[in-house]
Amino acid sequence: MNRISIEKNVYIPMPVTIVGANVEGKPNFMTAVWVSRVNSNPPMIAVAIGKEHYTSKGIFENNTFSINVPAQDLLVETDYCGLISGKERDKSQLFEFCYGVTGTAPMIKDCPISMECKLVQTVELPDNHLFIGEIVRVAAYDFFLRGGSPDYKKIHPLLMTLPDSNYWSLGEHIGDAHKIGKFMKVNV
Amino acid sequence: MNRISIEKNVYIPMPVTIVGANVEGKPNFMTAVWVSRVNSNPPMIAVAIGKEHYTSKGIFENNTFSINVPAQDLLVETDYCGLISGKERDKSQLFEFCYGVTGTAPMIKDCPISMECKLVQTVELPDNHLFIGEIVRVAAYDFFLRGGSPDYKKIHPLLMTLPDSNYWSLGEHIGDAHKIGKFMKVNV
Repeated sequence: MNRISIEKNVYIPMPVTIVGANVEGKPNFMTAVWVSRVNSNPPMIAVAIGKEHYTSKGIFENNTFSINVPAQDLLVETDYCGLISGKERDKSQLFEFCYGVTGTAPMIKDCPISMECKLVQTVELPDNHLFIGEIVRVAAYDFFLRGGSPDYKKIHPLLMTLPDSNYWSLGEHIGDAHKIGKFMKVNV
Repeated sequence: MNRISIEKNVYIPMPVTIVGANVEGKPNFMTAVWVSRVNSNPPMIAVAIGKEHYTSKGIFENNTFSINVPAQDLLVETDYCGLISGKERDKSQLFEFCYGVTGTAPMIKDCPISMECKLVQTVELPDNHLFIGEIVRVAAYDFFLRGGSPDYKKIHPLLMTLPDSNYWSLGEHIGDAHKIGKFMKVNV
């Protein structure tokens, strides 16, 4: 094997989510994979969205958004939300949705988990706005929980890799985190 | 199924990476799962790290860090790096490493892919620093590439879920992104 330099715009495996935001009073939904939790207390999540995206406009209008975790049964709808802009097509009827405590962040009832977020900070990057939201409420179906938390083996979440543009399922359990590394303690 | 409110500190499936940073001139490695690409041009990646973490100290010292993508064969070492702080234990000999163009971001040669990053912005959050880095160079083994880009089916990356603390493999290919949603166009 040779170690070589490759294209810098390289990707890691990415969790697939759908961002919900009201734009001009109407729900819009956009697939987002550049998303990560960023703070525990209070719980915060960040999502990077193109500055020209319709969803960015909505987040600035209301300072609220939702992060929804779709399951495999929404694969086609999820891909559609990443292909077509709300500027071109009305996506408000694509899913059953509801509002929570903020009143302006449409949450997808067809998704196992929806996080309702209040915008706390926007970081302006060259291409994107990085929206950092405080998670103010999480709605989930009891069926997809284990001990009160999401059970991703049941949820069948989507993962994406780029630039090959593939969706993947979550695979097999391969180890217990914060545990198997303990075996190294004696050796290092 | 009942839709209920659950604990707000909820997680999505997370890609597992190892952050490399020199602290007081010596490499340190820390497992990080709150990581996401955030900008395309120039390519940027963000990682949220606890303010008190040893790695944060190193990133501030040099304004550089690396993001390394471990494969399943490094599962135990990866978990170890998330369990033990560099304050307690010297982790500099845990991996074979090298430096790139910055000279201060230790990259793990045992990982299929390593990104060398220059710090461009630090966002201070209540618990964490969100470090945003420009990816200035990516090193990879040709064996793990397809068409010049990472082939994650070959790489066998790690994913993590919390609070159940499980590691998962990447699963099966379940669809072509930016493609299967086209079938919806006629219906919506």
